[in-house]
Amino acid sequence: MAKLNFYFDPLSEPCRSVQLFLEANKIPYETKHTDLITAATRTEEYRKISPTQTVPAIVHGEFKLFESVAILQYLAGAFSTPDHWYPSEAKKRARINEYLHWHHLNSRWKGGLLVVMKYIYLPHFYKQEVSEEDKKGSIIALKQTLDTFENYFLKDNRFIAGDEISIADLMAVGELIAPDIIGVYVGKGRPRVQAWHQNIKAALGAVYDSVHAAMYKHMDDIKGLVPPIDY
Amino acid sequence: MAKLNFYFDPLSEPCRSVQLFLEANKIPYETKHTDLITAATRTEEYRKISPTQTVPAIVHGEFKLFESVAILQYLAGAFSTPDHWYPSEAKKRARINEYLHWHHLNSRWKGGLLVVMKYIYLPHFYKQEVSEEDKKGSIIALKQTLDTFENYFLKDNRFIAGDEISIADLMAVGELIAPDIIGVYVGKGRPRVQAWHQNIKAALGAVYDSVHAAMYKHMDDIKGLVPPIDY
Repeated sequence: MAKLNFYFDPLSEPCRSVQLFLEANKIPYETKHTDLITAATRTEEYRKISPTQTVPAIVHGEFKLFESVAILQYLAGAFSTPDHWYPSEAKKRARINEYLHWHHLNSRWKGGLLVVMKYIYLPHFYKQEVSEEDKKGSIIALKQTLDTFENYFLKDNRFIAGDEISIADLMAVGELIAPDIIGVYVGKGRPRVQAWHQNIKAALGAVYDSVHAAMYKHMDDIKGLVPPIDY
Repeated sequence: MAKLNFYFDPLSEPCRSVQLFLEANKIPYETKHTDLITAATRTEEYRKISPTQTVPAIVHGEFKLFESVAILQYLAGAFSTPDHWYPSEAKKRARINEYLHWHHLNSRWKGGLLVVMKYIYLPHFYKQEVSEEDKKGSIIALKQTLDTFENYFLKDNRFIAGDEISIADLMAVGELIAPDIIGVYVGKGRPRVQAWHQNIKAALGAVYDSVHAAMYKHMDDIKGLVPPIDY
């Protein structure tokens, strides 16, 4: 069996999504910590692994791949994981692909990134001024994303594509719990999002907490940096 | 054979990508013009077709689907189009998925949307002020995207995933020619992008121009709105 190297930073949302999949499926892999904060991704050596110098990336045998969703899709095939992760039935797969392509400019951009950047990283770590209007705009964008997620993607099912967990749920949960770091719980006032989050935890068991351990610690470290947000 | 309805606006990049595929593969479909500018997407009726009220969307028999890439992936399977459009071989497919997931926050956001919004749509149609710094920032982001596209995705091949055209090329070309509208030709100083653009035109023949006809007209209409850009 070809060796699988996994380049990741446990504080990156897309990395955790891939790691949840690897752990849940007991796929053997070698961890290559490549931390964003220490600029371990910015070396010429790492560029040979990931041309965009982003994490996650994998090397499976000789095959290099970046982009978290593409990695999940590839791993599901290469390791013949149970069908529910990425169903082969055409319409189920289409529904998952619909979510996964919607994901980038919505759950990722307006969910995981924008709010956290505007409230925490830009002002506190990069010392950039962010206007109140700009901050509030990021909350509005997050709410619009969550409305679609609650009212469409979770409308009929326990998970995005049916009664079983899939790679779409792994991608979504990584981003949508990110605003927790500034005290914004996305399940507030959204019963389907709340139930879905519990369903994911139940489906993943101990793996959920172990993959999030570094994030929980980071959240503790920066607690109090931002005053409570009117969300 | 189930009927295929295609909801689209010919001025939308993702719509044109899907239409190129439909036309190139001679897939029979019924056009449902759903123009963004007349707010045809903002009706409650259209929300029943596309819950995000975006174009493109399809209804195939009873099956509704939005998100352009998911539509292309679904159509390739449903109409058994030639393998090169979305190869079944695992590593080739992974390379295409890698591009298609990178696409949204790069070719789409920094390619097709940001520059055009900052230079044309926000100041001229929505009468919003855009600072010079903001405009220049969008050009920098576009150049970074094009660098990765030229130096990685087109490094070894005539097309993104090899010697034949795929759905990745259709998605990319739609976005990357969009800045043409403000006189920014993305092939300038980038020989691989230039050759790739010619390869796409050659592979698609007359279909390329017919699908772009409405865009060419729109470009003519707004010509001169923006002074030449130092690109």
